[in-house]
Amino acid sequence: MKIGLDILGGDFAPEATIQGAILASKQLSKEQKIVLIGDQNIAKQQIEQAGENPAFFEYVHAPEIIGMGEHPTKAIAQKPNSSISRGFQLLKEGAIDSFASAGSTGAMLVGAVLSVKNIPGVIRPAIGTYVPKISGGYGFLLDVGAVSDCKPEMLSQFGLLGSLFAEHVAGMTAPNVALLNIGEEEEKGNTLTQASYPLLKQNQRIRFIGNIEGRNVFDDGVDVIVCDGFTGNVVLKMAESFYVMTQRKGLKDEFFDRFNYEIYGGTPILGVNAPVVIGHGISNPKAIETMIMLSKTMIESDIIEKIKSAFNE
Amino acid sequence: MKIGLDILGGDFAPEATIQGAILASKQLSKEQKIVLIGDQNIAKQQIEQAGENPAFFEYVHAPEIIGMGEHPTKAIAQKPNSSISRGFQLLKEGAIDSFASAGSTGAMLVGAVLSVKNIPGVIRPAIGTYVPKISGGYGFLLDVGAVSDCKPEMLSQFGLLGSLFAEHVAGMTAPNVALLNIGEEEEKGNTLTQASYPLLKQNQRIRFIGNIEGRNVFDDGVDVIVCDGFTGNVVLKMAESFYVMTQRKGLKDEFFDRFNYEIYGGTPILGVNAPVVIGHGISNPKAIETMIMLSKTMIESDIIEKIKSAFNE
Repeated sequence: MKIGLDILGGDFAPEATIQGAILASKQLSKEQKIVLIGDQNIAKQQIEQAGENPAFFEYVHAPEIIGMGEHPTKAIAQKPNSSISRGFQLLKEGAIDSFASAGSTGAMLVGAVLSVKNIPGVIRPAIGTYVPKISGGYGFLLDVGAVSDCKPEMLSQFGLLGSLFAEHVAGMTAPNVALLNIGEEEEKGNTLTQASYPLLKQNQRIRFIGNIEGRNVFDDGVDVIVCDGFTGNVVLKMAESFYVMTQRKGLKDEFFDRFNYEIYGGTPILGVNAPVVIGHGISNPKAIETMIMLSKTMIESDIIEKIKSAFNE
Repeated sequence: MKIGLDILGGDFAPEATIQGAILASKQLSKEQKIVLIGDQNIAKQQIEQAGENPAFFEYVHAPEIIGMGEHPTKAIAQKPNSSISRGFQLLKEGAIDSFASAGSTGAMLVGAVLSVKNIPGVIRPAIGTYVPKISGGYGFLLDVGAVSDCKPEMLSQFGLLGSLFAEHVAGMTAPNVALLNIGEEEEKGNTLTQASYPLLKQNQRIRFIGNIEGRNVFDDGVDVIVCDGFTGNVVLKMAESFYVMTQRKGLKDEFFDRFNYEIYGGTPILGVNAPVVIGHGISNPKAIETMIMLSKTMIESDIIEKIKSAFNE
C-alpha cells in the first residue's frame, strides 16, 4: 500500500505535514508506505532532524506549489511539477493508492476529476465531512462544496455515495440517509429539495428516512445527511465556528471537542476512481496524521470498488 | 397605539400568550393597548385569575384556530373567524397598528401578503431574525424562510429591508450588509450569490461589505446578513440547536444564552404594509412579551413608512 501525501499543502506545510507523516508512520506496517510528494530535500532533512529514519518513507520530488488563490484548472495544467499535479499523475498511473493534501480544495477537486476521473454513472463527485453526533460518534454530511448548484439526481447520488462511505469506511451498520430541508413534511422545501425527495425515496439502495432540519444536523439518529454543496459548506463552516466559539468561551465538553477538525482530519472526495482526501488549510500534525489514516482506511475498505459496483448494477 | 396579539397561536397558547401579554402590559402606557385576538371569554377569565384588570386590554372574539398542519392559503380563506384571519382583517382596516402571532408561520406570511399586501416595489417580503454577535449585541439575518427559491434582485432588496430594520428598529448606527456565501472573493458562490453580489455592490442605499462564510455569521463586524430563505432557515435552526446543545451539556455562557429565542422573541415580516411579527411555536410568556415589545418598537420607529420611502425614491 502506498499512501500519497502532498507535503507542501496547508498553511503550516511542510513542517506540519512531515510531522503528521511521522506520527502516522508509527501506526503503519512495513508494507504500508507514505509517499511524500513535494521538495524531497526538505522532507529528508526534516525527518532526520526529527530523529527518524528517512528510509521509512518514499519520496517524489515535486517542489512547485499551487497557491490557495490560483485558478485550479490553470494551475493544474501550468504546474505539472507541483505537488498536487504530481500527486494526481501518480494516482492515475497507480503508483500510489490514494492521494491526500491540505492544499487548495479547488485544485484537489479539479485534479481528481481530470486525472482519475468520475466513476462511470456518477454525475458529479461530492465532498463529504464527518459531523459529531450529540451522544457520541459521527454522522456524515455531503456535499460540502464540490457542487454549489445541484440537480435532484445529484442529491440522490450523494445519498448513495454517503451511504457507502458511512458503511464501509466509517463503519456504521445499515446507515440511514436524510435530506437536509426546511420542514419535515415531504412537500416542504425549495425547488431542489422538493424534487430530490421522491428520488431519494425511490432509491432502493439507501435507507432514506426523510427530511431533517438545521436543528437535527447533530442528532444521534441521523447517519448520512444530503444537501447541495452551497448549503453544506455553510453548515460545515458554521459548525466549525461553533467549535471555535465554545473554545473561545472556555467551554470544555467532549461533544464540542468532537467538532475539532483534527479528530476527523480530512474530507474525502467521493465519486472519483481513487481515494482522494482534502485536509483543512490550518491542518496541524495531528490533523495530517488523521488524514493519512483516513486514506489508509479508504484503501483497505475497497470503497472505490464498492462505489463502482453500486453505480453499475 | 393598538398592538394586536393572536392569543391562540403557539404550542402553549392561550396560557403563555395571555401571561406574556400581562408581562408586556406592565411596560406600556395607557395609550398603548394590547388587543387580544382569540377566545375573549378565556382571555378575560385567565386575566382575572392572574389578579389583573381585564380593562387594561382590548378584546376581539375570534375563537377558531389555524393548526400548524393546515394549508396556509386555504385556512386563511376558510376560517375567517380564526384568530390569524381576524388579526389580518383588523390590521388591514387599521383597527390595530401591528399584528403578532406564535402560530403557523405559513398562515402569518400568506395572511400578511393577502391582507396588507407588499409595499410597492418589494418583489417578495422576507422574514428576518436576530443572531447574537460573539462580543455582545445582535446582527440581523434575512431571509429565514419566506422565499426558499430566490432571485438575485430579491437578495439585493433583502439587503435594503434588513438595513432599514437594523438602523431604525434594532438601533444600529450605519449598519453594514454582508452576503452569506461559500468564499470571500467576489466571484465565489452558487449561481444565485454570484449574480446577487454585483447587485448588492451597486445598491447605493446599503453599506455592502462583501461576502461572508458560515463561520462569520456571529462575527462582531457583521450587522445584516443576506441569504435565500432556504439557507437562512437552515442557519437559524442550526443556531437554535447550538443553544439547545449548550443547555443540554450544562454549559452556561452569556453568549450562548443570547441564542435563546426568548430574548429576541419574534421574527418580523419585512416588506409588507404593516408591522407583522411571527413568534416561535414554543414561545413561553417571556418570548411573547418580547414579541409584543418588538411590535411596539416597530410601530414607534415608523419602519413601514421608512421602507415605503426607500423603495419608492
